[in-house]
Amino acid sequence: MILQPVTDIAEICARLGLKNVVLSPGSRCAPLTIAFARHPEMQVKTVSDERVAAFTGLGMAQISGKASVLVCTSGTAAYNYAPAVAEAFYQQIPLLVLTADRPNEWVDQQDGQTIRQTNIYQNHIKQSFNFPADLTHPDAIWHAHRLVSEAINLAHAFPAGPVHINIPLREPFYPKPDEVFGYTKNLKIIQETENAFKLSDLQAEVLKAELQQFSRILVVAGQQMPDAKLQEAVAGFCTQNHSVLVSDVISNFNAENAIKHQDVFLNAKNPATENLHPELLITFGKSVISKNLKLFLRKSPNLQHWHIQPAGQVADTFQALTKIIRCEPLSFFTKIGSVSGLKTAPEFAENWQKQEKRAADHLASFFQNKPFNEFSAYWLTMQNLPENSILHVANSMAVRYANLIGLPAEKNIKVIANRGTSGIDGCTSTAVGNAWQSGKLTTLFTGDLAFFYDRNGLWHNYLPENLRIIVFNNQGGGIFRLIDGPGSQPELDEYFETRQMLQAQNTAKDFGLRYFKCATEAELLQILTEFYKQNGATILEIMTENLANAAVFREFKNSFETN
Amino acid sequence: MILQPVTDIAEICARLGLKNVVLSPGSRCAPLTIAFARHPEMQVKTVSDERVAAFTGLGMAQISGKASVLVCTSGTAAYNYAPAVAEAFYQQIPLLVLTADRPNEWVDQQDGQTIRQTNIYQNHIKQSFNFPADLTHPDAIWHAHRLVSEAINLAHAFPAGPVHINIPLREPFYPKPDEVFGYTKNLKIIQETENAFKLSDLQAEVLKAELQQFSRILVVAGQQMPDAKLQEAVAGFCTQNHSVLVSDVISNFNAENAIKHQDVFLNAKNPATENLHPELLITFGKSVISKNLKLFLRKSPNLQHWHIQPAGQVADTFQALTKIIRCEPLSFFTKIGSVSGLKTAPEFAENWQKQEKRAADHLASFFQNKPFNEFSAYWLTMQNLPENSILHVANSMAVRYANLIGLPAEKNIKVIANRGTSGIDGCTSTAVGNAWQSGKLTTLFTGDLAFFYDRNGLWHNYLPENLRIIVFNNQGGGIFRLIDGPGSQPELDEYFETRQMLQAQNTAKDFGLRYFKCATEAELLQILTEFYKQNGATILEIMTENLANAAVFREFKNSFETN
Repeated sequence: MILQPVTDIAEICARLGLKNVVLSPGSRCAPLTIAFARHPEMQVKTVSDERVAAFTGLGMAQISGKASVLVCTSGTAAYNYAPAVAEAFYQQIPLLVLTADRPNEWVDQQDGQTIRQTNIYQNHIKQSFNFPADLTHPDAIWHAHRLVSEAINLAHAFPAGPVHINIPLREPFYPKPDEVFGYTKNLKIIQETENAFKLSDLQAEVLKAELQQFSRILVVAGQQMPDAKLQEAVAGFCTQNHSVLVSDVISNFNAENAIKHQDVFLNAKNPATENLHPELLITFGKSVISKNLKLFLRKSPNLQHWHIQPAGQVADTFQALTKIIRCEPLSFFTKIGSVSGLKTAPEFAENWQKQEKRAADHLASFFQNKPFNEFSAYWLTMQNLPENSILHVANSMAVRYANLIGLPAEKNIKVIANRGTSGIDGCTSTAVGNAWQSGKLTTLFTGDLAFFYDRNGLWHNYLPENLRIIVFNNQGGGIFRLIDGPGSQPELDEYFETRQMLQAQNTAKDFGLRYFKCATEAELLQILTEFYKQNGATILEIMTENLANAAVFREFKNSFETN
Repeated sequence: MILQPVTDIAEICARLGLKNVVLSPGSRCAPLTIAFARHPEMQVKTVSDERVAAFTGLGMAQISGKASVLVCTSGTAAYNYAPAVAEAFYQQIPLLVLTADRPNEWVDQQDGQTIRQTNIYQNHIKQSFNFPADLTHPDAIWHAHRLVSEAINLAHAFPAGPVHINIPLREPFYPKPDEVFGYTKNLKIIQETENAFKLSDLQAEVLKAELQQFSRILVVAGQQMPDAKLQEAVAGFCTQNHSVLVSDVISNFNAENAIKHQDVFLNAKNPATENLHPELLITFGKSVISKNLKLFLRKSPNLQHWHIQPAGQVADTFQALTKIIRCEPLSFFTKIGSVSGLKTAPEFAENWQKQEKRAADHLASFFQNKPFNEFSAYWLTMQNLPENSILHVANSMAVRYANLIGLPAEKNIKVIANRGTSGIDGCTSTAVGNAWQSGKLTTLFTGDLAFFYDRNGLWHNYLPENLRIIVFNNQGGGIFRLIDGPGSQPELDEYFETRQMLQAQNTAKDFGLRYFKCATEAELLQILTEFYKQNGATILEIMTENLANAAVFREFKNSFETN
């Protein structure tokens, strides 16, 4: 018979509010499959490619904020989760990873699908738990129940992230026909309240006093989900204290006075940036995309950097970190508010706003009369994004173009990207997870390499009708033609750009998506009017030519003057 | 400029006889890409999906016996290698895994594509080396050179396996136009001779004396590549000593007197196996497929088990291991030869041969007048395999069917399967690597799940003309309908079998393979006459119906009587 504490894992997950489960088929994991599939409160999907399964789980958790449950069988299945687990770890997304295993005595005994799974995600997991294999002693049952609560709570404790329970299972894996199946009622669970992470009055006074010494304050919002209250508090802080707010497209921070085009003007050929250097940098949130912003700040002389983060390891991204403030960003900006006696110079903010305007103007006029190219295509598709929707931007060039262009204002678009590790390995799958969970129109911007790399993201029986995929197909890793360095190497074509000939039409056929293709601006504009109207998952493939793309991108950079 | 010791990694690889390199595109790894791409003795391919890249490298090393070099960029790219690395570890295949990394000071600083790569394959790697980031001190250069030699030697030392060098690289990643590029001449390398692992005369005498106490000796050959000398020695040993030789299809051990259909008669409904139990089991090689054989031997009363393996950890697969003999199997069987005074009973071998004959006869007659099904299709395709070719059998049912049926005699077919971890995650990619390296006709037997899981195995610019893929498509994980347990669960269709609707035609179009499809025996026979004749990579898709497959498989099992 199936051991009751194994079945009860699903019950504990339900009691602690988890809902989304992605299973990958296997025999060793059958007791878990059955436990979740039969649980009335669980929404269970099955996805065969474990790499995909884990990224779809990540995509749902990005929207819900609650851990998705992943269940796989023993062996390399667990390793196929690893890319998504690492992404979740750095992006701080909760995941509950359940890997079935043989009991320890069978490891390395040449039985099939058996590897050394204990702590297999090692440094990219908040904690790895070992579910007991033998459940005869009452303490073992207490342990089995307790660690599921502990794991779920830990996944959500700030900073959120993936946790792993390795579950050794002995045969039988399937209940017998006459076996009574059910969940234990009134299981003891452990609930954990959220920590408020407030700045104290005393701490606020000390920080206010310190702030008075700075005349040029720059606030940078890292990756985060939209937060209207925080946005208001930060915008207020910046206005009142003549400070500058910089946001990436993945910051989801569309405050009116925010700088959004730093990637344009800090990327200019000869940027005149002397008057933009801050004395104090205040950051919160996760990573930023713009390499230009990072390099600019790393070179800022005598910079001090305060980072606001309630708990956990803090990165010294700009090589200038001097103070870690342990509270919620909202608490910091609300408590500090307007700093009296601040000697900030209004011209600092004006210098940034001047560059912001030049960059926005350059963008608005640049694409006229250009041969069709991917940068223009990104520009057009971004302007045409539907209101109140999700935009998932894949890694490599998609997220870079999106960050250069910026979101159209006041459309309430949530931007998601896998910027924890910035891999191209799961972007489609993650967007599918976003679509499942949000129910909103979800647009994926992806290059051809990222799209075909993760083509299995569409290989399951749950194609979301609200998914719209835009494949910017330049038939290779176009990024290598755009960045400095590889362009002049003889290996460019074969070993960097890696020309590939796939187009998405057969993929659309295979998985039953509508398919549009275009290679001119006129076609693109015409298709865009249809693209979001009809219901049903759809691929729009935009074919561009790598040499033209590189020429336009170069011209964009070279034609912008910062002064 | 590019640091010379980084460029010289390629030179050391060449000096130590490595030839095959699989690169995956990236910027961080550009110095390695350039070093290998420009080296005149290296055969370099570029494969974008790192999971695929690693399995293709594995496939080449399975044939060549020499480590393939894998090169990837930093971040989750390295994790995508992990399934193949674990497979190589357990299958004892040499790989040299080179992962580009950021220098250590940039780990966890929110830069892109940066994870904690040091020892990332932890327990599934023979050793992880850290290439020095700073190469100013002469000792660091000595270290850099030395560890490449050490890693390559270790990969090939028995038991062979994967080794990892993590290589932190600082910008610039690309040589400047005026930079002199070249490899250091007369680099100091470390060569390691192979160990002979011979049994001494004294050891042989002791073992001979011990052998005299056994009357029923069973020899089981685990997975290995064909070895004519060893086969002759083992066959001779068994004949002279009235012992029984059992081989799996992956043992590549086609001795005339070998038992090959143990999976048929040990799988029978009510097997009469009492007179088959050995007193002494002698094994060599790696894993065996047959679960029935394992269970049978685990239940053999008072069994002693000797395993012959020159070095490394030994598995107690049959729960009866009593002696580990540290020498090459060839040395053991040659030195021992005919044991005088052995009290072996000839009827023991006769009992096994009787069952072998019954099983072979059952197979030869069973498929007549059956409705078309996948078991029959496997039978037909196996009979039609071309001489002097490679057969790669994918995991799940393909390798099981192949083992039930056995190879046709005297066709000189080398059988390869990923039975280290038995995953379905890289079977197509590995077969592609087999085809690249062997140059012989290479047939892949694969189910639909394994095929579409690893569809990216065909996504590169090096489609091998000698590749023939046979997709046995039952539109799901048919294995779950064949094994006991899941068949009676309400979750069978959705969560175990996981019905999937893909067929391979669009995949063939995408990648430019010829495509045949059939759903009857007549069609299959007709196509098989064409399938190997024309040159060019080809897919043959055999559509079968899961209910019919399960019924025939059940009938096969139930209709066989062991006495």
